[in-house]
Amino acid sequence: MTDPHALSQLIEQYQKRVEDKLEHWLPPAPTLPTELHQAMRYSVLNGGKRVRAILVYMVGEALDIPLEALDGPACAVEIIHAYSLIHDDLPAMDDDDLRRGKPTCHRQFDEATAILAGDALHSLAFYILAHDPAIQSSDHKRLKMVECLAHAIGSRGMAGGQAIDLASEGKALTLAELENMHIHKTGALIRASVELAVLSDNCPVSLQKALDKYAKCIGLAFQIRDDILDVEADTDTLGKPQGADIARNKSTYPSLLGMNEAKRWARELHEDAVQAIDIIDKKADPLRWLSSYIIERSN
Amino acid sequence: MTDPHALSQLIEQYQKRVEDKLEHWLPPAPTLPTELHQAMRYSVLNGGKRVRAILVYMVGEALDIPLEALDGPACAVEIIHAYSLIHDDLPAMDDDDLRRGKPTCHRQFDEATAILAGDALHSLAFYILAHDPAIQSSDHKRLKMVECLAHAIGSRGMAGGQAIDLASEGKALTLAELENMHIHKTGALIRASVELAVLSDNCPVSLQKALDKYAKCIGLAFQIRDDILDVEADTDTLGKPQGADIARNKSTYPSLLGMNEAKRWARELHEDAVQAIDIIDKKADPLRWLSSYIIERSN
Repeated sequence: MTDPHALSQLIEQYQKRVEDKLEHWLPPAPTLPTELHQAMRYSVLNGGKRVRAILVYMVGEALDIPLEALDGPACAVEIIHAYSLIHDDLPAMDDDDLRRGKPTCHRQFDEATAILAGDALHSLAFYILAHDPAIQSSDHKRLKMVECLAHAIGSRGMAGGQAIDLASEGKALTLAELENMHIHKTGALIRASVELAVLSDNCPVSLQKALDKYAKCIGLAFQIRDDILDVEADTDTLGKPQGADIARNKSTYPSLLGMNEAKRWARELHEDAVQAIDIIDKKADPLRWLSSYIIERSN
Repeated sequence: MTDPHALSQLIEQYQKRVEDKLEHWLPPAPTLPTELHQAMRYSVLNGGKRVRAILVYMVGEALDIPLEALDGPACAVEIIHAYSLIHDDLPAMDDDDLRRGKPTCHRQFDEATAILAGDALHSLAFYILAHDPAIQSSDHKRLKMVECLAHAIGSRGMAGGQAIDLASEGKALTLAELENMHIHKTGALIRASVELAVLSDNCPVSLQKALDKYAKCIGLAFQIRDDILDVEADTDTLGKPQGADIARNKSTYPSLLGMNEAKRWARELHEDAVQAIDIIDKKADPLRWLSSYIIERSN
């Protein structure tokens, strides 16, 4: 089913597309307050994988939604992701110096600027969803997008997940606790990416449910792969220090399940994801490839 | 024109009302993640003056909008204000230990929790605007509310103002630079509070402009009064250390203009605010009283 060449071409095409659109929405670097705007641009336009934007585009294309209508949601989820990384990297949180091979925002600028850049990006994502004229959904569905994103990243979603993660450092988690943390910390925004695309269309409920199941499975698989890479990849490939989880004494899938079982479980989640969307024809092939890529990627 | 007794009764009534509604929207303290939820509640339900919510209600009542329809916008602006105070108080920013007479959020909890509580509140405000069933505006106007709030608090609004403020510490600002900073840092959210109320109604453009002028004037007057209180009030009344601006070598209205001239200017802005809304009948009297209260308040 996987076609690595077609997938990498498609990923590159979407990455380029969202990069252009992000450039459009970000405040120009020379405008005041310049340092804040530079920090926002530095943190968003730093060569991320754009998995969340790619998801928006791929789900949208599977539903025959024009790409123009998907740009806004794709930018919104990437901007939220960027804001969350800036804040997670702060000294009071994960205290990371490197992100995608470059100094983290607070290292490149300073802590205050990093906090504010995260905050300003957070607002910008909602501005885009409410304002972007290219979004074709009804006003009602556009409001649902705002609601969905706000819920996904709030105290019962991404921010809550990060709080659970911080509270868990140095503690031995059960598998259920680890899963609960990841469902919130990374899973919620991945699910929201899919839901935002779905809200761009009049998608039947059965299809919505199928795509949501797909999102849940790949969200968890994504995290398991992250944990595996923390053990197996090197720092250069990762763009962040290898072994950081182990150094922090964090519970991970390999530490709880063993490496082989963690890999087996990622594969199982991939298979569940693919099965969930078997009601969609070949227009969903990129989603199938993406799921496979997620559990095989090297960074 | 001022009726201090009627005003204080009205203020108390709105404060009580928004307190109840905030309680409704905030996550219950015992729910997971508990510490994050406690920090959110601690920072929002801490007896603030609720000037921004009061503005929403007073503008709304001047436009004959039912109070129920104003609760969502009133909560949204107070929640945003609370988030901004949490982040502004952080060690990397203003490094404040006291807020409204109690330990600041990062002092009561810890820095990571404070950052996340601010982030989660930020999202919650947008969730309320998009979701609250009591808001009676069309979906189109509700989206405008989201857009307006997002713009007001982003890099060209509140977050930008805080960035300018941090960059200005220890520098001698011109009056124009000081005003520019405050227009962004506190003025933008005060203006948005008025605009959110206006968007709850089919308000004619002339009235919109009048109310926006009013908002701009009282926003600046509010800040001048803050600067005056930093010199004249005592720490107990303020709930934060008196003289903090002077200690940080910050440019303020009294430091640039002298105390008498700063007070004269606050009065002039109050008069401009009152004049701006002279096209509205006595239903706008509370707004006239509020403007007067803003330049006379003692904390």
